[in-house]
Parts: sequence; structure tokens; C-alpha cells
Amino acid sequence: VLRKVNQRGDVRTDARENRERLLGAARRLLRQRGTEASLREVAREARVGIGTLYRHFPTREALVEAALSAEFDALAGEGRQLEAAGEPGQVLLEWLREFAALTGAYEGLPSSVLTALGDPASPLHHSCLALRRRAAALLTRAQRSGELRADLTVADLLSLTAGLAWAANRTPGGTPVDHLLALAFEGLSA
Amino acid sequence: VLRKVNQRGDVRTDARENRERLLGAARRLLRQRGTEASLREVAREARVGIGTLYRHFPTREALVEAALSAEFDALAGEGRQLEAAGEPGQVLLEWLREFAALTGAYEGLPSSVLTALGDPASPLHHSCLALRRRAAALLTRAQRSGELRADLTVADLLSLTAGLAWAANRTPGGTPVDHLLALAFEGLSA
Repeated sequence: VLRKVNQRGDVRTDARENRERLLGAARRLLRQRGTEASLREVAREARVGIGTLYRHFPTREALVEAALSAEFDALAGEGRQLEAAGEPGQVLLEWLREFAALTGAYEGLPSSVLTALGDPASPLHHSCLALRRRAAALLTRAQRSGELRADLTVADLLSLTAGLAWAANRTPGGTPVDHLLALAFEGLSA
Repeated sequence: VLRKVNQRGDVRTDARENRERLLGAARRLLRQRGTEASLREVAREARVGIGTLYRHFPTREALVEAALSAEFDALAGEGRQLEAAGEPGQVLLEWLREFAALTGAYEGLPSSVLTALGDPASPLHHSCLALRRRAAALLTRAQRSGELRADLTVADLLSLTAGLAWAANRTPGGTPVDHLLALAFEGLSA
């Protein structure tokens, strides 16, 4: 009986490890290639068979949704760490650069993922809310320190950043998003 | 013979008037409904038959391309008028608001129109270049007056504005593009 339990435990551990490896590979490849990245390549990079990939993530949408949720959680975690360190305005700008890179990479989400984003019952929705709360905390901190204007809302800030990420992606070789963000921070006025 | 010439002249005048009315109607409806606006509605608003519309613009793409070209020319003309009037920085901001409204309305251009935009042999490409030159002139003026930062390029400026227009359109009920533009002008820093 003991052996059986151990075996079951091992199977569960293997499954969890495979899932983590798949998610890690998906995050890397989706960032590089966008949401149309090859699933075979994801499986190859995770060193599992394509059948294992489909067992964990029955559809491309399921994989994209799980990867995006993991990205949100990682970015929220990064924000929590940054909160402890450095000048609040600079910290916020750094964090927004990461946010811009993420929204740029995940442009053109499948409609099922967009639906999940807005669905209070979905884990993705919860990760998204947590991310937004983290952004709000970083913004409040930079406003309290007097570095950022007090009338700025988190909705303004994220909308503006997502727009600049889109603009930078749309014209390859054009102005990089980090420069557009720095311009918006400092202002276009002399 | 004279009568024949007159008749021909009348036909030409009618055709030109129909084309102008169709373009005017297309500009209004494309702005309101986007590039998928109904062609029957365009013909109705122009008070011509749908056959007349197709005689002038054989495809939706041809109509969208001609309307966009007319919008570019109108916006360039507006820029020329504004140049004479008012504080350069304020004038530029006003003009960018118009530019943002235009790029927001024409989001999701058919690929043939995107191709024409980049094709040196197309009238649309010429209108686009003229518009860009107008933007550059307005920017230079605002930089010379010391109102806008000297290191700003016209590419940065138009890219940033198009990105904010996209962001404002993407979240209906979110931050209006005019507010996002004002934020970027003044800067997010306190």
C-alpha cells in the first residue's frame, strides 16, 4: 500500500513538474513569437511530448490563458518586491516598462481569453485584478512621495502604457516603447 | 456641336458632384461606424444609387482609400490654417487631437489600403507624406517657440498620439484620448 501511495505521489509530482515546465516554455515562446507561437515548439522546449501538452492544456486558448495568468502573477510579485526598494517614481516607471513588454507580447488575444479576463469566475480575472491593485499601490506610493501628479488614476496610467506598447509594436524599427514611456513621464512640453 | 459639348460637360460636372457627395458621405459614415460602414447607407446619404457608388468606387477598399486620402488632405489643410494662428504649443495639441480622432476612426484598415499607404505610386501615400510634413512643421514651430522639448521627433509624436488613440478606443468609457494626450503633453511627473 505504501508503495502504491508513493507511486501515485510520484505521478502527481511528475504531472506538476511537466505543467510547470510547459508553462515556463509557453511564457518564453509567447513573448518571443506572440500568441500564435507553435505548440509543438512549446512541447519541445519543455521536453515533453505534444500529447502531454494537450493533456494539461486541451486547447491553445487554455495554454495562452494559463501563461498570461502566470505572467500577471509574476509581474504582481515583481511589483511587491519593487515596492520595498528605490525611489517610488523610478520604481513605477521600471514596473510600467515590464507591463508594456507584457501587453505588447500578448497583443491579439483569442476572444475566449478576452472573455476570461472579464469573467469574475475565472482565475485569469483574479490575476488581472491583483495586478491592477499592485499598479495602484505603486502609483499611490509615487504620488505620496510627490513624484507623480496627484490627479493621475491607475486606469489612465495603464491605458496610456498599453497604448504606447501598441504603438511601438506597430512600427518595427520605430520609437521603442521605453522611450515613448519616458517621454510621457517627463512630458512633451519643454 | 456646341450643344453636344455642353451635354458632355454637364455629364462630367454631374459625375464630379456625385463623387464629391459620395466622398463626403463616406467620410461622415466611416468616422461614425468605422471601416465596415454600410455602402448602401453611404449611397443613401449621398443621395445617389448604389450603382453610381460602385461606378465611382468599384470596391469598399477603393472607397475607404479615397475617403482616407481626403481626410489626410483636409487635416493637412487645417494644419496649414492653424499655423497662422495662436500659440504654437496649443495649436499643435489641438491638431494632434484631430489626428487622434482620425486614426481612431480608421482603425483596422483593409490590407489593400495599408499597402497603398506604403506605396510611393499611390495618391494615398502622397497625402500621408504631406500630412506628416504638416505635422513636422507644426512641431518645429512649437519647438522654436520653446514650448515643446527640442529632442522630440515627428515620428515619436505621431506614434505616441496614434497609440493613445488606440488605447482610448479599446476601452469604451475609459479615459478619453484628449485627456491621455493632455497628460502626455504635461507629463505624468508632478
